[in-house]
Amino acid sequence: MERVAIIGASMTQFGQREGEWIQDLLAEAGSECLEDAGVDADDVEHLYVSNMASGEFEGQTGVPNALAHDLDAMPAYTQRVDQTSSSGGAGIYAAWQSVASGASDMTLLVGGEKMTHKTTGEATDVIASLTHPAEYKHGVTLPSFAGLTARHYLERFDAPRESLGKVAVKNHKNGVDNPHAQFQKEVDLETVLESPIVADPLRLYDFCPITDGSAALMLCPESVAEAYTDEYVVISGIDGATDTHVVHEREDPTVMGGVVESGNGAYEMSGYGPADIDVAELHDMFTILEFLQMEGLGFAEQGEAWKRVADGDTERDGELPINTSGGLKSKGHPLGASGVAQGVEIYEQLVGEAGPRQVDADVGLCCNVGGFGNCVITTIMEAAQ
Amino acid sequence: MERVAIIGASMTQFGQREGEWIQDLLAEAGSECLEDAGVDADDVEHLYVSNMASGEFEGQTGVPNALAHDLDAMPAYTQRVDQTSSSGGAGIYAAWQSVASGASDMTLLVGGEKMTHKTTGEATDVIASLTHPAEYKHGVTLPSFAGLTARHYLERFDAPRESLGKVAVKNHKNGVDNPHAQFQKEVDLETVLESPIVADPLRLYDFCPITDGSAALMLCPESVAEAYTDEYVVISGIDGATDTHVVHEREDPTVMGGVVESGNGAYEMSGYGPADIDVAELHDMFTILEFLQMEGLGFAEQGEAWKRVADGDTERDGELPINTSGGLKSKGHPLGASGVAQGVEIYEQLVGEAGPRQVDADVGLCCNVGGFGNCVITTIMEAAQ
Repeated sequence: MERVAIIGASMTQFGQREGEWIQDLLAEAGSECLEDAGVDADDVEHLYVSNMASGEFEGQTGVPNALAHDLDAMPAYTQRVDQTSSSGGAGIYAAWQSVASGASDMTLLVGGEKMTHKTTGEATDVIASLTHPAEYKHGVTLPSFAGLTARHYLERFDAPRESLGKVAVKNHKNGVDNPHAQFQKEVDLETVLESPIVADPLRLYDFCPITDGSAALMLCPESVAEAYTDEYVVISGIDGATDTHVVHEREDPTVMGGVVESGNGAYEMSGYGPADIDVAELHDMFTILEFLQMEGLGFAEQGEAWKRVADGDTERDGELPINTSGGLKSKGHPLGASGVAQGVEIYEQLVGEAGPRQVDADVGLCCNVGGFGNCVITTIMEAAQ
Repeated sequence: MERVAIIGASMTQFGQREGEWIQDLLAEAGSECLEDAGVDADDVEHLYVSNMASGEFEGQTGVPNALAHDLDAMPAYTQRVDQTSSSGGAGIYAAWQSVASGASDMTLLVGGEKMTHKTTGEATDVIASLTHPAEYKHGVTLPSFAGLTARHYLERFDAPRESLGKVAVKNHKNGVDNPHAQFQKEVDLETVLESPIVADPLRLYDFCPITDGSAALMLCPESVAEAYTDEYVVISGIDGATDTHVVHEREDPTVMGGVVESGNGAYEMSGYGPADIDVAELHDMFTILEFLQMEGLGFAEQGEAWKRVADGDTERDGELPINTSGGLKSKGHPLGASGVAQGVEIYEQLVGEAGPRQVDADVGLCCNVGGFGNCVITTIMEAAQ
């Protein structure tokens, strides 16, 4: 089967986009991606929109149809992809399938979410609606799962509290060099460790913000890509997997089954293993998740990811740079956009367009986590040779 | 490329499902489909959920993850497919792509919606959120588009008002023999023509009801299908296409571009033409839509579909039976389920399991319309030889 290529990428400014709506953000990223790829809207055959909740956030549905209209891409087929906080990764998978199945020779994927016009409580309520009602009714939201897991991890593996803080410090440092990041400012470890408690032991700086934004990727068969550019990226492996929807039914709270399964699937398909990955974007919605994904993906043994972070291995000049974009932590987390934006960062790193964030990389990986690991999509990309 | 087969189908009772929730309906159709196909939950690799608005209707999101959990199908990958009222058809397309791309060798598609616990006004508001804000703010909802289009059609093509009524009479007659239909009762032409006006010239019986329900299909490569059964169906052609999101920008209000484009795509892929279709399920959300789809799909010349209906060609014993299931009109229209349920009817007709509704058919077609033709998916199926 012919390989699937990525020939263009874009993202809007992430942050508070006052006075703009989901439609504006999607159209901005979508039209920039058309331009970046050098593709006419007329040539787009499939258009996927990764978005969790435009209906709940804005009372607006049918956004893929509106986007096809705004980009003047009719009669391109369009559909919305929702996999909660991993909608973006699910969008990459849907777009990959559309090309790999032969249904489309040019697929535009645009992910986005508009959230900041809601209060933090309102936005949290929408996000919490993805949890199992049996847990939610007891007040167990995603941040509280994170707090419980972090407490367990630190005690069981004798990891210092500072190790989690270092994830936040590193990702904020990377975000300074990302002009699209919501926060482009460094924070020191002391600030992180003394910030207000949200879900003990996790504090404010262990959490990603609420964000507006959109990101886009252009996918096509490799033979089509070659007609457009020499500088493209190939999706070498991609897979998605679920874990229990009821989080407390999992055997080991530090193992995210969806990360392990989707990672294994993506490794197998690509022929690469953890040691071949040069750069990775992980879903650091909470700092503890960066540890769990590093371990689930084989970048560290169970209980030892914190040591690699503490040793500086995951810094931009380390052995395995993680979240060079700033991650969800400083770049922001507009739900449907986040997984797509992970892909944008890996694309830019692999084609050498990451500017001051550039690392030396031939193979990259994204891991996008839905819910508290309820469904995870892992994508491995490589620079075209 | 290997063909994609359907090896099992199910649907729940459509209607008012008091005290049950979206999760219950999806799990009921999903587990019945596993049983019908003779497939273990462990063997499901991808699970798609077609659903427009569980967040808006029930404040519950993440339903695909919950369904994977309820069916004990972890670590199957799962994702929600939303294409407004054509979410079900989009689900068939997504499931087809998952198999045709090689990503999954066993894909379960479950469509569903829970709506009747809302008032008609509340449900209409959720549906109306798919229209373009520029039209919605002027009060132009889907029923009013239908009324305007019907008035134009009747006057321009000199069609009698009765011809629309006959669509309702026929579909209700078919629904009597569908034990899962919301309305299993005949209505006479007089009742239809004297029912209360909703959007002149359309009356109550020109509209489908608000419905709870779920439907499911099991898809796999043909070589896998053969290991399970001799009686299966093959997807011969499938395509989706958009039209303008702003309905008043269309050149001819009686031509739905998405129907024409997706129909042409599905015909081309299958090698079949309109004359080869033995049975069809069309999206009769409003009676006028059955005419527009018959014409867009080449079953009648423009302005002449009403004559075929008047002549009885589309009755169960006619030349081209349409909506043998009862259609959305009498079977009901649980948004995310409807396109899947169209597929269930064609599957049952082609494998000879349609009971009293059975017609003689080797090739069937479904047309699922999102919004007012904003996006349309057409699927052509044939009995395996």
